[in-house]
Amino acid sequence: MTDGSEWIARREASSLARLKQFLAIPSVSTRSEHRDDVARCAAWLAAELRRMGFKAECHLTPGHPIMVAEWRGAPAGAPSVLLYGHYDVQPPEPLELWDSPPFVATERADRIYARGAADDKGQLWIHLMALGAWLEARGSLPVNVVLLIEGEEEVGSPSLPGFLAAHQARLTCDHVVISDSVMFAPGIPSILSSMRGIAYFELTARSAPTDLHSGQYGGVVGNAAGGLARALASLQHADGRVAVVGFYDDVRDVPPERRGRLASLPFDERRFASEVGVGLLVGEDGFAPLERLWYRPSCDVNGIWGGYTGEGSKTVIPGTAQAKVSFRLVPDQTSVGVERQLREHLAALSIPGVTFDLRQLHGAPPWSAPLDSAGVEAARRALATAFEHEAIITGAGGTIPIVSELERHFGNRMLLIGFGLPGENAHGPNEWISLDNIRRGARAMFSLYEELGSSTSGALAGRAKHSPGR
Amino acid sequence: MTDGSEWIARREASSLARLKQFLAIPSVSTRSEHRDDVARCAAWLAAELRRMGFKAECHLTPGHPIMVAEWRGAPAGAPSVLLYGHYDVQPPEPLELWDSPPFVATERADRIYARGAADDKGQLWIHLMALGAWLEARGSLPVNVVLLIEGEEEVGSPSLPGFLAAHQARLTCDHVVISDSVMFAPGIPSILSSMRGIAYFELTARSAPTDLHSGQYGGVVGNAAGGLARALASLQHADGRVAVVGFYDDVRDVPPERRGRLASLPFDERRFASEVGVGLLVGEDGFAPLERLWYRPSCDVNGIWGGYTGEGSKTVIPGTAQAKVSFRLVPDQTSVGVERQLREHLAALSIPGVTFDLRQLHGAPPWSAPLDSAGVEAARRALATAFEHEAIITGAGGTIPIVSELERHFGNRMLLIGFGLPGENAHGPNEWISLDNIRRGARAMFSLYEELGSSTSGALAGRAKHSPGR
Repeated sequence: MTDGSEWIARREASSLARLKQFLAIPSVSTRSEHRDDVARCAAWLAAELRRMGFKAECHLTPGHPIMVAEWRGAPAGAPSVLLYGHYDVQPPEPLELWDSPPFVATERADRIYARGAADDKGQLWIHLMALGAWLEARGSLPVNVVLLIEGEEEVGSPSLPGFLAAHQARLTCDHVVISDSVMFAPGIPSILSSMRGIAYFELTARSAPTDLHSGQYGGVVGNAAGGLARALASLQHADGRVAVVGFYDDVRDVPPERRGRLASLPFDERRFASEVGVGLLVGEDGFAPLERLWYRPSCDVNGIWGGYTGEGSKTVIPGTAQAKVSFRLVPDQTSVGVERQLREHLAALSIPGVTFDLRQLHGAPPWSAPLDSAGVEAARRALATAFEHEAIITGAGGTIPIVSELERHFGNRMLLIGFGLPGENAHGPNEWISLDNIRRGARAMFSLYEELGSSTSGALAGRAKHSPGR
Repeated sequence: MTDGSEWIARREASSLARLKQFLAIPSVSTRSEHRDDVARCAAWLAAELRRMGFKAECHLTPGHPIMVAEWRGAPAGAPSVLLYGHYDVQPPEPLELWDSPPFVATERADRIYARGAADDKGQLWIHLMALGAWLEARGSLPVNVVLLIEGEEEVGSPSLPGFLAAHQARLTCDHVVISDSVMFAPGIPSILSSMRGIAYFELTARSAPTDLHSGQYGGVVGNAAGGLARALASLQHADGRVAVVGFYDDVRDVPPERRGRLASLPFDERRFASEVGVGLLVGEDGFAPLERLWYRPSCDVNGIWGGYTGEGSKTVIPGTAQAKVSFRLVPDQTSVGVERQLREHLAALSIPGVTFDLRQLHGAPPWSAPLDSAGVEAARRALATAFEHEAIITGAGGTIPIVSELERHFGNRMLLIGFGLPGENAHGPNEWISLDNIRRGARAMFSLYEELGSSTSGALAGRAKHSPGR
């Protein structure tokens, strides 16, 4: 086996030049004035893939195009890989904080700086470099490959579910590979194998049809803002542990194979706290920080407002106050179950003169992949070779909605291999990707495709095949 | 003794016509575009008082003019009365909710509708009608009278304290009469003899220098909004009783002569709740509603904000959250004392990862007048005759800052006799004053001046003279 390093190196200059063209297109999906740029970016990418030998099309949607490129020339019985990514980017503002223009990819200190460098154009490009090296070196790929690259990831992928449903047969695959996440630390290749779900609510407290004067009514009427504070305070114990009855009933114990690995990760709690700008880490007693972040549910007030919020003093009793409050979920919690528990909790509260109204704004299930699938094993080997460091298993504290959506269609066969790094400024000014990660990443993906191709379709997916999406 | 009814009736048409001119001037003190109107209103009022025989001047201030008019022709030894009022008004918006234009005084159903009809031009006018009747009927007044009519009451009277200090000698008086409040109910003349003070704070909770992603950090960092909710919830028991240690130490028991009177007042709790639009009245156990409103301290969250407050969901952990929270105070509480207790309370809270910063935005002492002063006795008699109903003693749940300010300069010799009525819409659309209250009020004030004049300076002020302002 070769990791393609020679071929990757030979093509590097021209490939990075084309990546810079890709990064130069301001494909900002949230902004209507960039609509043509987004479409142009999809077309540019399709042309690039056609040039490489793929059959590529841009599918129109009510929003931005979905680019699908296929290469199906692998030997009979070879597995197929669906590579998901996105070519749209976040807005670059505030522009004045960028050290080089966001749409002029600039190399500094072994990094490429540009909007989209890490999220996700640069990470997607790593795969194109690996695939291009294969095609130049061997004239073919060891697996059938479908690239599904959307232009609406930064706006919540509204067109994707319908597209997946309409093209399920054509997109069906043995492995789904996504590179849109970060490595745990520089030099430590990481396979992301779980993420927390979410149940996100808007809670409205009402005490009167209008704000009332606190002099005229203070002491005889309920206070929506005070009642809301009381309700929110009742949701958690002082250490952050959720106080809603039944909340932990469906929480699976952290599997020992995950919990055990945590202790060996290079995690400096004090340094982490200092980088975040907090004095110390806090949270549920009895669990280490990474355990709390990845494998334990949490609750946060995300926003709160009511009454007078301007300068100085105004003596009102707010008639209405609202909060956004959300719960991060882990297997086997569900957003529906948490909503039911929360409703029961609120109904049992007795706050004189205040009533509550609860509305779930958003829910997403937690996700967790088996660690012993053949796909994970292949990725471990490929990454360890290219990075000269054992790959580690990480979790995500947040939700990556597309993962659940893909799982729902294709079953639990996702390989999430990120090449971004902490501090990459994915949505901020001076976004960057490490050139070393690009080089090693391309070699790792070159090997991964070879590893996956060395088996027949269905064999490698392992037991993931038998645990279809929830 | 006469109540001047004949003279008041004879002058009524022309006097109301001039009141309508007064109400036609849009003396909106908060709006710079009305600056000239405010000045014109002061000049108009001074001219009116000169026409009546007063010596009147408009004193310029950094804000709006203070109009002072004096009549000092009373017999030697006659007491002097300072009449405080204000000629400025609240903005009339929203205009579309008015049934007649706010600056065109309109009579409907025995009321005059206009901005300022109740607050305070119309109530001030009652005194001008009484004084005008005296001067026409007798050619003189039974007391020396100084009118101190400011144009900044609706913006917090910023120029008044300096003016009082600069003109203290000239303004010194035996009685201060203010008509800028409401009667308890139609037909029930009321003497306002206490008001609650206030300690108003801004409380800031901080957990991180910036908002953090709740997926990336939920479970390991503090939450400013959640911590703030916890802190606010800790301030009160479920029934509203304040849970801050020491808060009730300085609270005087409600004097029996006040508490006893409450039971006899026509107060329908259910109707009150229904008029406010709340299902029921709530509050501290063991005290009747009016007692809680007038004579017991209270605590209210006046505003709260932090994190994401827009539409939909955004998964942030607010790094900062803030609340406005205030306490209504009764004798002998002080805003300084409450601030100290609140600081101790916050320091004793232990909310992991959240720190608090407290700032007092505003403080005002509670105020309470003796009920047995000769001034109160005179007012009782005058009101009872004119309204054919015994005058009652009321309290104000809110703060009237000018009362404490006047007390500070002249001692506790205030007579607060309001002729407004509940529902008068003082700061809202369709503000009105009852024409019956204007007529009876003018007769009552005619009698009051006579009663006050029938004694010599110093005699009637009674024991109030010996309890100067705090």
